Amino acid sequence: MKISILKNYLNDSIQQVYKAISSRTTIPILTGIKLDVNHQGVTLTASDTDISIQSFIPVEDDNQTVVQVEQTGSVVLPAKFFVEIIKKLPSQEIVMEVKDHFQTFISSGATEIQMVGLDPEEFPILPAIEGNQTLSIPGDLLKNMIKQTGFSISTHETTPILTGILWNLEDNELKFTATDRHRLATRSAQLNGGDVKFNNVVIAGKTLSELSKIVPDQNTLVDILVSDNQVLFKIENVLFYSRILEGIYPDTSRIIPTSYKTELIIDTKKLSESIDRAYLLSREEKTNIVRLQTLDHGGIEISSSSTELGKVREELDVVDFKGEPLRISFNSKYMLDVLKVVESEQLMIAFTGIMSPIVLKPMDDSNSLYVILPYRTNN
Amino acid sequence: MKISILKNYLNDSIQQVYKAISSRTTIPILTGIKLDVNHQGVTLTASDTDISIQSFIPVEDDNQTVVQVEQTGSVVLPAKFFVEIIKKLPSQEIVMEVKDHFQTFISSGATEIQMVGLDPEEFPILPAIEGNQTLSIPGDLLKNMIKQTGFSISTHETTPILTGILWNLEDNELKFTATDRHRLATRSAQLNGGDVKFNNVVIAGKTLSELSKIVPDQNTLVDILVSDNQVLFKIENVLFYSRILEGIYPDTSRIIPTSYKTELIIDTKKLSESIDRAYLLSREEKTNIVRLQTLDHGGIEISSSSTELGKVREELDVVDFKGEPLRISFNSKYMLDVLKVVESEQLMIAFTGIMSPIVLKPMDDSNSLYVILPYRTNN
Repeated sequence: MKISILKNYLNDSIQQVYKAISSRTTIPILTGIKLDVNHQGVTLTASDTDISIQSFIPVEDDNQTVVQVEQTGSVVLPAKFFVEIIKKLPSQEIVMEVKDHFQTFISSGATEIQMVGLDPEEFPILPAIEGNQTLSIPGDLLKNMIKQTGFSISTHETTPILTGILWNLEDNELKFTATDRHRLATRSAQLNGGDVKFNNVVIAGKTLSELSKIVPDQNTLVDILVSDNQVLFKIENVLFYSRILEGIYPDTSRIIPTSYKTELIIDTKKLSESIDRAYLLSREEKTNIVRLQTLDHGGIEISSSSTELGKVREELDVVDFKGEPLRISFNSKYMLDVLKVVESEQLMIAFTGIMSPIVLKPMDDSNSLYVILPYRTNN
Repeated sequence: MKISILKNYLNDSIQQVYKAISSRTTIPILTGIKLDVNHQGVTLTASDTDISIQSFIPVEDDNQTVVQVEQTGSVVLPAKFFVEIIKKLPSQEIVMEVKDHFQTFISSGATEIQMVGLDPEEFPILPAIEGNQTLSIPGDLLKNMIKQTGFSISTHETTPILTGILWNLEDNELKFTATDRHRLATRSAQLNGGDVKFNNVVIAGKTLSELSKIVPDQNTLVDILVSDNQVLFKIENVLFYSRILEGIYPDTSRIIPTSYKTELIIDTKKLSESIDRAYLLSREEKTNIVRLQTLDHGGIEISSSSTELGKVREELDVVDFKGEPLRISFNSKYMLDVLKVVESEQLMIAFTGIMSPIVLKPMDDSNSLYVILPYRTNN
């Protein structure tokens, strides 16, 4: 293998695939990035077995020569050193040549690097994703759906299935669900055309948050292919493979109340700031418990207390109030997590009793729904 | 104590004194910030016994009423909660009132906070600094001197005196010295007027870096008073007290070579980038060893190697080269630390042999001098 390549293209591709490199891997070949050169361009691949990322650099882009291929071939290079040194090379032009025993010579300006390469034959082969059913979704919508549900996944490895986000697709409606048994987030979106459908596709939240970083901010279409145990995301020149989590995702429909005894409509920002102040104190108690109470003269009271530090209490106007008076305690951190991702100016909070799940729905947005379980307290 | 105070003034002062709060203190009263109210204004004080910071908020500033004093008095409030909640209060106007048992009531907009206060009598009294000899130094110069020497202090508590920066003042020349026995940094500055002089004043590097954060970026004069075991910095409305480290600072003059066998003048940025690339590889070996070698045809070679990863090697032009050829190894991290703070475009590196200290001097700047001990290696 011998090529000459532009630094910014190589650097961008390395940054993309490097997200699949795990610092905790015990398999030496997986600490490396594989380079495959053919006459179409250079393909970089990295994998931690759960996710694999492939990025393709074409020989030409925008009428500019990006790669000059003198000799095709492959090599695996040590990822951490490779990612850092390429970024810092002095010239745009980088020459790379693989010699005996995968010794790789890289030169740029007056800098010469000799890198101990590994045998590309040892690198795991990426899964073949069967099926011609492709789902297309705008990149910014996908990122938004991940952000608006991902915070509710479980971080405990004791229930691996709950560390993922559940994907369901039916009648062109894609729905994400995430829960850690104390809270639940769902987000739906109507997609255009196609008759693809699936259910119980669960993808690790951590993986989806890595995916989010690769999806560009401008409106790019992401193509998604789902097989039995793998899902493949195609984003421009990048292929992102992820394992689908094994197991059956629990039925969450029953924990969402369908009728309410108390319904409030509140300004999102004001509620968020108010709960944030009460949270500051509750956090010092390590409980995060904050209390919400309806007031006789209208409005609500948000409060928290700490034996060591004191009390925070404030009154808040509501836009609308229907139903019975109420006094309920909840984890304010969970509430703030929801309020952070709600984009509507107002939201509805609904209750069916002090022991029943609290429902939050952004106004003017029927696609999102959040549930938080209350705390059992005596005061 | 009962006052009404503007949020931004209170917040700025809290942020300043909060830097003296140690999260590891075992003395309950020192987890608090003391407020003293008299008819001139409010004084906030925090201390971790090594450093104490006091900030004064006058009743009036810029023809604006900042504090309205209804009743004078004092209280100590829990620092961490206080600093966070004040920042997030909804209105500019904050009312504070201390009632029985130092219970403190704070209100702002619709927010009401009750804080468990402590007895201000328990708060340590700040040291009285005797002496009418005041040293004045422009704030940006002081910050620069701290930055350009502070990185060379020792982080090992086994030699406490070396965790400080040595201050000497004689003939209006203020000189900072820092060393961890492997490297040395000195920086001098000529000050105006006065006949103050002192030597062996050693102030903890950590303390001076906290002080740096309080000194404003615009050109403010910092007044400095030195007593036997304390130093006081006056910056506008802030008083910053620091303990002087006990012990005699070692004589460092003998480790600075006065004649050289090899002298190089090099472009600072080019050298820095070149060593940074070699450092990337040397860091993976956990040694940071990089080699500098003069070349027969002029210029130098910078290189490093790792058995596992490979080699980095590059040639660099020099502006001037005097004396004997040389091949020397050193800790590249130490070299980079120096290069980061050198402001001159070119610098001189001088050598007296492969086992002797390496001297670095920025060109056009006789106020700074850096020394790095070489590594003893066999290649």
